Amino acid sequence: MIRLIGIDPGLRFMGWGVIEVEGNRLRHIADGVLATDSADSVPQRLCTLHEGLKNLIENFAPVEAAVEETYVNRNGSSTLKLGYARGVALLVPALVGLPVSEYGAMAVKRSVVGTGAASKEQVTMMVRRLLPGAIIKRADASDALAVAICHAHYRASACRVVQGVRMA
Amino acid sequence: MIRLIGIDPGLRFMGWGVIEVEGNRLRHIADGVLATDSADSVPQRLCTLHEGLKNLIENFAPVEAAVEETYVNRNGSSTLKLGYARGVALLVPALVGLPVSEYGAMAVKRSVVGTGAASKEQVTMMVRRLLPGAIIKRADASDALAVAICHAHYRASACRVVQGVRMA
Repeated sequence: MIRLIGIDPGLRFMGWGVIEVEGNRLRHIADGVLATDSADSVPQRLCTLHEGLKNLIENFAPVEAAVEETYVNRNGSSTLKLGYARGVALLVPALVGLPVSEYGAMAVKRSVVGTGAASKEQVTMMVRRLLPGAIIKRADASDALAVAICHAHYRASACRVVQGVRMA
Repeated sequence: MIRLIGIDPGLRFMGWGVIEVEGNRLRHIADGVLATDSADSVPQRLCTLHEGLKNLIENFAPVEAAVEETYVNRNGSSTLKLGYARGVALLVPALVGLPVSEYGAMAVKRSVVGTGAASKEQVTMMVRRLLPGAIIKRADASDALAVAICHAHYRASACRVVQGVRMA
């Protein structure tokens, strides 16, 4: 039995989800969203995300982390902000020695729904089905659980699991 | 007399420069570049930058930090990588309670050379002139010293200095 944390990074809202994996069985532990105040300075907001993630890892003690690859849009300034948040999401688990894997949106959808072309609603629906009993209130938390589920599938084929693996 | 650290963020090379300011007098303390190995995973590279910056701040004990606003280019993937590095550059000084200011390339050039249209070579030349005795080997370190000098100028007008101030 192994505990994983999935993270869907964003500067305003950072989704997180913790699951347990035992063979093919998945179990929901917790999920939520870390929010930052857009009135705060960017350094302050990054501190908020850093502290939040650090506390989650201390409290739930996952042994591996999976981070969703952020969608790269055309707006350079918002891509940069996503980059800040994603940098913190990759940094914090690595600082405490957790292996961190990255998965693109296509890989996540494929492993949760079976097709890379799945809609957001289909992903949310399948996350609920795969984690019975989970009450998931926010889309960011659902996306974070989806990336955790994706990592659970990939790590099942043990040879693929290396520090910092990246699936497109 | 006050000690400042300037940071020119990048995932491969992160320039840094420490100066002392006393009234209108500037003094060079140290500069250099933190480098990461592109063969390492991104989380490992962010850990390297985090540890490096943390050590610099502990060793040189600056009381304020200034970070250059990264150039936002058209390539989403490289903008995202700059974002990771810049996120770490904004986070690490903020975590230890240093006020962090951000300055755009134009503001830096204007305060070092007198015009926002200055070339990189002009900036390097003026940094050497403003900080006599400094042997600056790398352009990233020179850019980091330039943003520290820029911050020294702006903070001289005390009312402009607030946590997380951002000059375009």
